[in-house]
Amino acid sequence: MTRILLLGAGRSASSLIQYLLRHLATEDWQLTIADVNPEPLGPVVAAHGERARAVAFEIGQTERLHELVAAHEVAISMLPALFHPLVAQACLHHGRHLATASYATEEIRGFDAQAKAQGLTFLMECGLDPGLDHMSALPVIEEIRAQGGRLTSFKSYCGGLMAPDSEGDNPWRYKFTWNPRNVVVAGQGTARYIEGGHPRFIPYQQLFRRTERLSVPGYGEFEGYANRDSLSYRPLYGLDDIPTMLRGTLRRPGYCAAWAALVALGLTDDSYHLGNAAELPWASLIESFLPPAAELALPARVAAYLGLDPAGEEMQRLAWAGLFGPAPVGLPDATPAQLLERLLTAKWQLQPHDHDMIVMQHLFEYEPAEGGPAQQRTSSLVVTGDDAVHTAMAKTVGLPLGMAVRRLARGEVAHQGVVVPVHADLYRPILRELEIDYNIRFVESEHALA
Amino acid sequence: MTRILLLGAGRSASSLIQYLLRHLATEDWQLTIADVNPEPLGPVVAAHGERARAVAFEIGQTERLHELVAAHEVAISMLPALFHPLVAQACLHHGRHLATASYATEEIRGFDAQAKAQGLTFLMECGLDPGLDHMSALPVIEEIRAQGGRLTSFKSYCGGLMAPDSEGDNPWRYKFTWNPRNVVVAGQGTARYIEGGHPRFIPYQQLFRRTERLSVPGYGEFEGYANRDSLSYRPLYGLDDIPTMLRGTLRRPGYCAAWAALVALGLTDDSYHLGNAAELPWASLIESFLPPAAELALPARVAAYLGLDPAGEEMQRLAWAGLFGPAPVGLPDATPAQLLERLLTAKWQLQPHDHDMIVMQHLFEYEPAEGGPAQQRTSSLVVTGDDAVHTAMAKTVGLPLGMAVRRLARGEVAHQGVVVPVHADLYRPILRELEIDYNIRFVESEHALA
Repeated sequence: MTRILLLGAGRSASSLIQYLLRHLATEDWQLTIADVNPEPLGPVVAAHGERARAVAFEIGQTERLHELVAAHEVAISMLPALFHPLVAQACLHHGRHLATASYATEEIRGFDAQAKAQGLTFLMECGLDPGLDHMSALPVIEEIRAQGGRLTSFKSYCGGLMAPDSEGDNPWRYKFTWNPRNVVVAGQGTARYIEGGHPRFIPYQQLFRRTERLSVPGYGEFEGYANRDSLSYRPLYGLDDIPTMLRGTLRRPGYCAAWAALVALGLTDDSYHLGNAAELPWASLIESFLPPAAELALPARVAAYLGLDPAGEEMQRLAWAGLFGPAPVGLPDATPAQLLERLLTAKWQLQPHDHDMIVMQHLFEYEPAEGGPAQQRTSSLVVTGDDAVHTAMAKTVGLPLGMAVRRLARGEVAHQGVVVPVHADLYRPILRELEIDYNIRFVESEHALA
Repeated sequence: MTRILLLGAGRSASSLIQYLLRHLATEDWQLTIADVNPEPLGPVVAAHGERARAVAFEIGQTERLHELVAAHEVAISMLPALFHPLVAQACLHHGRHLATASYATEEIRGFDAQAKAQGLTFLMECGLDPGLDHMSALPVIEEIRAQGGRLTSFKSYCGGLMAPDSEGDNPWRYKFTWNPRNVVVAGQGTARYIEGGHPRFIPYQQLFRRTERLSVPGYGEFEGYANRDSLSYRPLYGLDDIPTMLRGTLRRPGYCAAWAALVALGLTDDSYHLGNAAELPWASLIESFLPPAAELALPARVAAYLGLDPAGEEMQRLAWAGLFGPAPVGLPDATPAQLLERLLTAKWQLQPHDHDMIVMQHLFEYEPAEGGPAQQRTSSLVVTGDDAVHTAMAKTVGLPLGMAVRRLARGEVAHQGVVVPVHADLYRPILRELEIDYNIRFVESEHALA
């Protein structure tokens, strides 16, 4: 029997919990789910008798954390990433394995030697992004290499969006499926990638204007903007010398141009407080970002200031969001970003009947060993949510993690120390299980480049 | 006899030193100039016998600082503002007065109560900006008030520029007359001011596009961009309820539009290192900030990217600066701002025959007590440098400070604690002396607003 501890049972853990419960008996597991609010889990675990229980646990209860970790062989942390080092330390102290869907940060990598010395495995980056991105890109890279091909370009995009049936009349074609704050401040800093062997830098103010158009058969068009750092993945994938490498985030076409307008106005700035009243109408707030001008109505002034078509799509999206309306901003002395987050949270709220959608697309370019024209291979994944609980986000984050833990509990993970799923013996069975049991599969296509 | 200590004898102290030496005998002063490099001062002070000496002193020699402060009645600090708290502490310890041309920061204001308790005066903000700005704006404000007028708008601009005879063929009409780094990163953050009773915010990316045109009779046209915080001066001037208040920086027309292009490219960013080689040509650096594009030449790509006229003035200024040339950037793994500073330092270097020019302009609007049309009163100052030593900057920073110290040494400053020159008994004699002895005067004009 293997005793498994899950720390944190928030929204994104729903599919992971379902997966762990599904395999309890066949894998001979005992599962403890520790969460600040264990009551709703009561009926769920009750059906599994002695094998499953839900207990109370609050972040910051260090003694309780140690007690829980000590009593299990594997700890899964779905807590905010900030707390993973604390969990990792407890795992080292009690000689337990660890698994998360979060980045193997410098701090986590600092535990590598000690984990190795104790024969422990700390599985990191086993969710969607990071996680499924590694697991799905590497088999293609390996296949091209095995055929003697020379990779010249690798671009990889991922986005958490809405299924077409749930976009409704929202012109942004977007709702919040994860932390709204992270969406509002996304991209701040300078994005860096490499193109044709040359480093490229995109300042924040240009980021949402420099998008690439992508299409996914059956799901239409998307646009991608560059993530902050595309280069750190090169060594991880053994692509240190690849001329072009970019990682990006997907949105529906038009989102980025309208978002660029929010950035240009200054509404995503989180670095200073406005000194505003909570009752300040949105229209007055927007006015305070404009140069003084007589006569013209507010939307016309914004369009003129930003050089936008007054009747164009960008302005329609801004108006739909409520920027020019009388509603109060609702928070006193807030940062622009805090007010924008509050406004959009009301507009972009997931409804109970909504289905979200995860889209991931890898674009590879390579020169075949046998010569001839360069090839582009595209590998695309689309996952839609089952309902408001088992969202596409929860499935794509939780299922790969659950499957990785299953291999770990079986003793099938040979790697020790801090491990990310770049090893074929780890990702192949996971990709297979995702495809066979959940119909989560990457669709590939290839064509010669002109 | 009053013993006066001057800490720091850098470039901007030249006119202050000349002023202090001029009044040594008549005021019965003894002057010690303490600097890291006292040798060049030898011949200057030698002419004054026992009354003046230059001694070695390095920032960080705390014991030596205390020794020096203890041996004088007044300490003037022209050290970097960072070190003023250390000097202030030594002054408190030994019961000495202090004078500087720097801001009365929160930290310095923290010494107010103790200085008052000891009967000491810490004169701050006695240079140009801050300094002469207070001294020249307040008499106008007081006069309008005394006549029963109601001030509705106060805008105040200042700039360190080049005299028309020294602008040469430099299309920016600008050279560095103070810390180049401060010029390169100027305006980062969000500028805030108040206009018509409404707060206004200008994000950094828009700052250099939202300029105001000004003109100074006899000196032509200028443009001003808003300083970061125009509001903190309202209580200082007793203008808490004024509907419009803005402080700004002056440049020659066209500078700001070209600088906005540098900002939009990302070249003023000081927050990350590029990982570049020192040998990287400037043209290649600029290329790395652009989206990939075939065919077009680099300047044409930049113009298209930024929406500029390829043959327009902005592009001419960028080309003149060397952005599109083969010269190496010269520093390895630098921030964009560091490279831009290096490039411009070569281009914008003050030549020995150059004359700099300080321009300050206050624009007041008020409603007269007797009714009738609102009035605009303008008060303008232009000071040109005598030569490369007695620059306009050195004169306008050093002379008001020297004059304030003269009053202090005479016992004519009644105010104690941390004092800024907003008191008529302090600024009136200084303004008079500047006008009579140095021909440094503000020219006023007034007209009714349409």
